[in-house]
Amino acid sequence: MVKSKIIAIGDELLLGQIENSNAAFIAQKLYNIGIPVHRMVTIGDVREELILELEDSLKNFNVTIMTGGLGPTHDDITKSTLVNFFNDKLILNESVLEHIKKLFENRGMEMPEINKEQAFVPSKAKIIWNENGTAPGFWIEENNKIFISLPGVPFEMKPMITDSVLHMLKEMVVPLLGYYQKSKTILTTGITESALAELIGDVKTIIGENNKLAFLPSATGVRLRIDVKADSEENADLVMSKLIKKVTEKIGKYIYGFDDDTLNKIVHNQLVKKGLTISTAESCTSGMLASALTEFSGSSSFFIGGINSYSNVTKIEILGVNADAIHKYGAVSEETAIEMATNVRKKFNTDIGISITGIAGPTGGTDEKPVGLVYIGYSDEKKAYAIKNLFGNNRERNRLRAVNAALSILHFELV
Amino acid sequence: MVKSKIIAIGDELLLGQIENSNAAFIAQKLYNIGIPVHRMVTIGDVREELILELEDSLKNFNVTIMTGGLGPTHDDITKSTLVNFFNDKLILNESVLEHIKKLFENRGMEMPEINKEQAFVPSKAKIIWNENGTAPGFWIEENNKIFISLPGVPFEMKPMITDSVLHMLKEMVVPLLGYYQKSKTILTTGITESALAELIGDVKTIIGENNKLAFLPSATGVRLRIDVKADSEENADLVMSKLIKKVTEKIGKYIYGFDDDTLNKIVHNQLVKKGLTISTAESCTSGMLASALTEFSGSSSFFIGGINSYSNVTKIEILGVNADAIHKYGAVSEETAIEMATNVRKKFNTDIGISITGIAGPTGGTDEKPVGLVYIGYSDEKKAYAIKNLFGNNRERNRLRAVNAALSILHFELV
Repeated sequence: MVKSKIIAIGDELLLGQIENSNAAFIAQKLYNIGIPVHRMVTIGDVREELILELEDSLKNFNVTIMTGGLGPTHDDITKSTLVNFFNDKLILNESVLEHIKKLFENRGMEMPEINKEQAFVPSKAKIIWNENGTAPGFWIEENNKIFISLPGVPFEMKPMITDSVLHMLKEMVVPLLGYYQKSKTILTTGITESALAELIGDVKTIIGENNKLAFLPSATGVRLRIDVKADSEENADLVMSKLIKKVTEKIGKYIYGFDDDTLNKIVHNQLVKKGLTISTAESCTSGMLASALTEFSGSSSFFIGGINSYSNVTKIEILGVNADAIHKYGAVSEETAIEMATNVRKKFNTDIGISITGIAGPTGGTDEKPVGLVYIGYSDEKKAYAIKNLFGNNRERNRLRAVNAALSILHFELV
Repeated sequence: MVKSKIIAIGDELLLGQIENSNAAFIAQKLYNIGIPVHRMVTIGDVREELILELEDSLKNFNVTIMTGGLGPTHDDITKSTLVNFFNDKLILNESVLEHIKKLFENRGMEMPEINKEQAFVPSKAKIIWNENGTAPGFWIEENNKIFISLPGVPFEMKPMITDSVLHMLKEMVVPLLGYYQKSKTILTTGITESALAELIGDVKTIIGENNKLAFLPSATGVRLRIDVKADSEENADLVMSKLIKKVTEKIGKYIYGFDDDTLNKIVHNQLVKKGLTISTAESCTSGMLASALTEFSGSSSFFIGGINSYSNVTKIEILGVNADAIHKYGAVSEETAIEMATNVRKKFNTDIGISITGIAGPTGGTDEKPVGLVYIGYSDEKKAYAIKNLFGNNRERNRLRAVNAALSILHFELV
C-alpha cells in the first residue's frame, strides 16, 4: 500500500481565521489514483514543528504533500526548512524569475525586490509550475519517499495538483502498488439511496469481487463511487467503462454527471446545447435559483431574467398570479407554483418557466402545510406541472434543497 | 501557556468526501478565551491511530478536543477507545437514554435498539449535553490534562462548544494561565486596510503595550482582532470595552458589527428596526442580493420582491429602463444603475430600491469597461445615486463582492 500524508502549514489555519479546504481536495484526487491519505496535519509557521513532521514522513509515508508557507515574507518557513532538512541549497531559477516578473508586469507593476527570493529553488527539487502565482511548487525525493510542497492559496494549488502532481505521482505509484487503481464517482439526482440500491440489485454480481462500489448520500443527491484495480491504466479504463455501462443500464435515468460535475453546470450545458431560454419565479429561495443558473459565463445565452416574488403582493401584482387562486389554494400550493412558472414564462417570453414556492422555516408552518413543504413548478409551451417536496426544519438546507430540486427537474426535462 | 490540540476522526474526512469545517470553528472559539490551538490532526476510524494521538496529548497538550466517531455503528471507535485508554468502563446514563428516546419520538419513530448503546457513557466522564443529536459529548480529566470528545456533525457540535465547553474551559484556564485573556473581532466595511491603519494611527498608543491589535483583510471587509490580558474576567471586559471605545472613536463609521455578526444579519436587523421595505434589481448577480436579504426568518417584513434583469430585454421591458439610455450609456453605467434602483422601488412600491449591474467576467470586458466593473444603485424617496466599483477577474468573487458592496451601502444608509 502507498501511504500518504497532507501537512497544512500556517498560523492563520490554527487561529481558525480560514478553513483548510485544500486537504479534502487533495485527498479526493489522491484517492482517485490509488493513494489514500492516512493522515492530515495542520501546524503553525514553526520550523521545529515542520521538521518533526518531515521526520515522521521519512519513516512512515511514501508521499507527503505540504501546502502553505511559500510566500516571500519571513513568516514563510517551508522552503528554508526543506532546504535545511534535506541538506540542500537554493539556486536561482531563471524561468521562474521570468514568470514572476511577468505576473507583476501583467498587473502593470514592477516586481518588488522581495519577490525575487521566490525564484530561488532547492537544487535537488523538480519545479512544479504555478501558473497563477509567484510561488513555484517543489518535488523532492529522498530514500524513495516523495515530498511535495505547494502554495496554500487554493486558486494556485488546485491546478498544480491536477495539471502536474497527479501525473507525476501516477508514474511512480503503479510500480510501487503492483497494480493500477482508478476511481470514478457517478452523480445521481431525483432518487433516494435505498431506491438506487434496489435498482442496482446485488452489487457483487454487477461489479465483481475485485472492485468496489460505495454509496455516498449528500444534500444534492446520492453519489456512487466505483474503485477498480487492474494491471495497467488501459485495463483499468477498460474495466471502469464496462462497469459504468452496467450501472448505467440499471440507473441511467438518474445519472446527471461524473466526478467534479455539478447540476448547475450540467443544466447550463443542456440549455446552451438545446438553444432554449429560461426565466425564474422564486418565492422562498428568492433569487437563489436565478443565481445558480447564472453561475457560469455564457449564461446570458439562455437566462433572460426572473422575479423574486417573496411577498404575495409581488406574486399578484408583478407576476400576475390570480389573487383568488392564492386565497383559495394558498401561496404554497401546486396551483400557485404552476401559475408562477407559466406566468413568468409568458412575461419574459422564454421557452421554459420554472418556479419555487415553499415554507423555508423555521416559522410559518401549519399542520396542513409544515415547514419544509416546497413546490417546484415547471412550464413550457406544451405542458405545465408542479412537484411537491417535503424537506426538513432547517431554513438554509431547505432553500438549498429547493434549488437542487428545481435544477433536477430541469435536468430531466432537458435530457 | 495553555496548549491545545484538535483531533478530527473519520474515514470520510481522509477520503476527502467532506471538508473539516469543525476545526476552524473550534480554534477560533478557543483562541478567544486564551487557549490557542497548536496542532490539528485528522485520522481515520482506526483505534491504534487514536491511541497514538491520545498518548501524544497526555504528554504535550493541556486540552484535546476530539470530533467524530461517536455514532452508534461499529465504525465509530472513539468512545470505546477512550474507555480502554483511560481504564474506564461504560455505565448507562438514564437521562441521556430519555433524551435519545425523545428525539426519535419527536420524529414519530421508536428508538432503534442500536441507539440505546449511545446512552452508555464512560463512568469517569462529565457529560456534555447534545441538544440536537443522539450522541452525548464527554469531558475526561487525566493527569491534569483535559480530553473532550464531541460528535462530528457541525450542527450538533457547535452549540455544545458555545453552550458548554467554553464555559467549562474558562473556569480551568485562568488558574493555569495566571491571567484572563479575551479576544474580540471588530468587523468593518467600505474601507481598505491601509486607510483603516491611517485612521487608527499608532497602534501602541491606542491599545497599550500588553494588548494586541491585528488586521485581518477578507473579501467581505477588513476585520480587526483585539486581544486583551487581565487578572480577572471583569477587568478583561473593562479593558476591552475601553479599547473598543477608543477604536470606535477613530473608525466608528466603518464598523458594522462584532465577532460572528454578518452584514446580511445586520442589514436585516436595521430594516426591521426602521420598518422600511426594500426591493432589488440585479443584473450580474442575478438574485444573489435578494437571496442574501432573505437569508433569515422574518425578512418578509421588509423584502417585497426583486427582478433579476440579467438581459437588456428584461431591463427594458420588465424593469422599464429607458432603452435609449442603455444604448447611450451602456447597461453597466451609473445612469442605468440609478434607473434600475429607482424603477424597481416604484414598481414594487417600496421605501428603498437597490440595484447591481456589472461585468462579472471572465468574458464581456472592454478597455473602457473592464471585467470587474460593477455599479451599485441606491434609491429612496429623497435621493438616488450609484457607486462605481472595480473588482478583479474572478467571476465568483466579483459577484460576491458586488453583493457585499450593496449590503455595505444599505448599512450606511440605514445607520
